[in-house]
Amino acid sequence: MRFKAVARVENGVTETPEDWDKVVSRLVFEKEYTEGLKGAGHFRHVWVLFGFHRMRTTLMTVHPMRNPDIPEVGVFASHSPTRPNKIGMTKARLIRVEGNVVTVKGLDAFDGSPVFDIKPPEEEIDYRPARRPRKSR
Amino acid sequence: MRFKAVARVENGVTETPEDWDKVVSRLVFEKEYTEGLKGAGHFRHVWVLFGFHRMRTTLMTVHPMRNPDIPEVGVFASHSPTRPNKIGMTKARLIRVEGNVVTVKGLDAFDGSPVFDIKPPEEEIDYRPARRPRKSR
Repeated sequence: MRFKAVARVENGVTETPEDWDKVVSRLVFEKEYTEGLKGAGHFRHVWVLFGFHRMRTTLMTVHPMRNPDIPEVGVFASHSPTRPNKIGMTKARLIRVEGNVVTVKGLDAFDGSPVFDIKPPEEEIDYRPARRPRKSR
Repeated sequence: MRFKAVARVENGVTETPEDWDKVVSRLVFEKEYTEGLKGAGHFRHVWVLFGFHRMRTTLMTVHPMRNPDIPEVGVFASHSPTRPNKIGMTKARLIRVEGNVVTVKGLDAFDGSPVFDIKPPEEEIDYRPARRPRKSR
């Protein structure tokens, strides 16, 4: 299946920083998707599905966190970007949504990464039925 | 970006069931990825990234849970499959991992859905450094 970037990450980060948690990123959506962001600012966090677009390596087993002291596990038992499909999935703090730009904190994606999707965390969803006006008879 | 299915969902479900939580699914991985599942059975849950492969519609706004009483929100403020990239992301209960088959419960994917990735939930990860034998001098 082919996926297109609905947004790009803008954060100026080109090398692994000391602490991704402190990184603020702007997800700049294609204008055609702006309407899809309606109500997206309601949540405290947001799942971001993005591409590890600089990663070319695929490994079946890895030392988690590139720590050679941690025994090797399968790549599917880890979050290593060396997975067959280079898809990252991170729950970031949602700062704000303005127009076509979603600003988040704590996203571990390099500058220019394609964003495929964002989703609200299940546990923060609290849709409520609107009160409907009663029909007068 | 192009993503290939690393596994397919086998659960016989072709119509929306009453309760997805009760559905048991087998994720049958391509044999070449079996090694990548090493240690994947350690966790109690697993995130499954899969394709809404039967969905053709894209909508920018939706009534969540197809409930007309709930006011419309942007598709990115919902989990609707009518999103631009048809990627589902569900935390399912992990039953077992055997060879190239991962058995899960509570995955809301139809039979035959492509699986792009599975990842352990962050909060269940507890990698520990192995105790290394001291070098004798």
